[in-house]
Amino acid sequence: MKKTDDHHCHCQINKGLDELKAMVDEHLGKIIDRASLPDPAIAAAMNYSLLAGGKRLRPVMCLAVAEMFGSPPEDILEAACAIELVHTYTLVHDDLPAMDDDDYRRGRLTCHRVYGEATAILAGDALLTLAFELLAEFGLKGGGAHHGRKALRLIRELAAAAGYRELICGQMMDLASEGRDDVPPEAVEEIGRRKTAALICAAIRMGAILGGATAEEFERLSRYGISMGMAFQIIDDLLNIEGDPEQMGKKTGTDRKKGKATYPALWGRNKAHERVMDLYHAAAGELEHFGSRAAVLRLLADRIVFRQD
Amino acid sequence: MKKTDDHHCHCQINKGLDELKAMVDEHLGKIIDRASLPDPAIAAAMNYSLLAGGKRLRPVMCLAVAEMFGSPPEDILEAACAIELVHTYTLVHDDLPAMDDDDYRRGRLTCHRVYGEATAILAGDALLTLAFELLAEFGLKGGGAHHGRKALRLIRELAAAAGYRELICGQMMDLASEGRDDVPPEAVEEIGRRKTAALICAAIRMGAILGGATAEEFERLSRYGISMGMAFQIIDDLLNIEGDPEQMGKKTGTDRKKGKATYPALWGRNKAHERVMDLYHAAAGELEHFGSRAAVLRLLADRIVFRQD
Repeated sequence: MKKTDDHHCHCQINKGLDELKAMVDEHLGKIIDRASLPDPAIAAAMNYSLLAGGKRLRPVMCLAVAEMFGSPPEDILEAACAIELVHTYTLVHDDLPAMDDDDYRRGRLTCHRVYGEATAILAGDALLTLAFELLAEFGLKGGGAHHGRKALRLIRELAAAAGYRELICGQMMDLASEGRDDVPPEAVEEIGRRKTAALICAAIRMGAILGGATAEEFERLSRYGISMGMAFQIIDDLLNIEGDPEQMGKKTGTDRKKGKATYPALWGRNKAHERVMDLYHAAAGELEHFGSRAAVLRLLADRIVFRQD
Repeated sequence: MKKTDDHHCHCQINKGLDELKAMVDEHLGKIIDRASLPDPAIAAAMNYSLLAGGKRLRPVMCLAVAEMFGSPPEDILEAACAIELVHTYTLVHDDLPAMDDDDYRRGRLTCHRVYGEATAILAGDALLTLAFELLAEFGLKGGGAHHGRKALRLIRELAAAAGYRELICGQMMDLASEGRDDVPPEAVEEIGRRKTAALICAAIRMGAILGGATAEEFERLSRYGISMGMAFQIIDDLLNIEGDPEQMGKKTGTDRKKGKATYPALWGRNKAHERVMDLYHAAAGELEHFGSRAAVLRLLADRIVFRQD
């Protein structure tokens, strides 16, 4: 989407978001321990996909929300990075020949095209498993009972969002929709909510857990998260039609070729743009309650809605 | 292996093991919640593999160890069943065309042969994810800080055993060994230790955590678990040569056809039988410390070593 407003006021925070991203990138680079391995191939495949340079949207969201409640990012980096491990695993498995069969991701060959299908399946499995190991370590290191309980809530949150009732169900519906012309237009919202919004919302909720949000704040932030997640998916679908393949590092037009049931495909591009703006305003509405503390989440919403890649 | 000793004395415990297995089977049947799903296919695929009727060795081991320390099985069933979810996920993914490409498992078509490759990948992913969700739920339900800390230790234990440094590394080495004649004989022990023994040992250690074992008891039981896990793998390899396909519900001779680096293939069948008995005695030695309390773990060792399927 084209940005029309003036956003100087965000400059300070903007730097903050980039700093959070840099912290995430640095920490992700240190997570996989190659030293103990008799066969380094699995670590290489995991790192290949993990360090391919994504937007780190989910961990940054988590850190930004926690910071809003006064939780220092450096203390919770491991927890935030666990979300990126799960996100990366979903990309590796989604790209597999049996799934979306994609050759490129972030401007590079996909994991299975470099390391083979078996290694890509295992690398995805390993990234997913490692996420929960890191969260358990995080909970055990902190010491206090309160901290341990937080870690268990983080694990439940992440597992529920990535599990068969949300993310995997969405992926099943997405695959089942391919090439069918009888997918009801309402269904695309449900696919997006489960496949994409659930994990983005989980990142926000995990930040709220880490920061110690009240029940009401938690609910508000959840609604912000769902709206942002759904907007993110529709923008993704729009970029697959309108985007610049070079800037995005992957081919466009692939959804249409596969006959995917996307929002713009079923409702048209205008309606899709309108829906994004509705979601954007709904998300902004939830943030009013937090006043100036939520400036960084407003900027995140702008970044999602007005992104070009 | 043929059983030569007389084992009347185990009859009482034997019933106990079958009761534990029945409890596990009943609980596994209730885990997957279909009601909330718009598309029941993923739940069907998960249940197809989960309820195919395995030996339930790992959760039974976990329950038996915990019971040895006075922990009632009915209180910790969810935690024990999480291990079976992880075990089932490994089977579903190992059977995939890109991995071992097996058509039959436990006398039935494999998951991908019934539901297709994409659904099988996702069903495996979902089983793995659900295991951690259940363990987090288990930890949050109990209440006390001590209980929460135990749950985090269970999650760390299970994730570490199933992760890239153990199980996945073993699977990588196993796949890499196929059809090669330069695999050093020592390497097959390492493959078995990582691919199979790590998870069996984790089941034992999880039982010890749940039961509240001391550090020394924990180490002894870990050594028992590793020995039993390695014995289990070599028996598996021997049954692939000597076993009855009908009784086992899967084809035999497949390792040889694939040129897998197994213990009997590299060391010969006699040496393999000897190694199993060495491991059996080493495991029994660790149990001496526990006296009559460990009767059920002795029986478990017998069941593993003298099994025919």
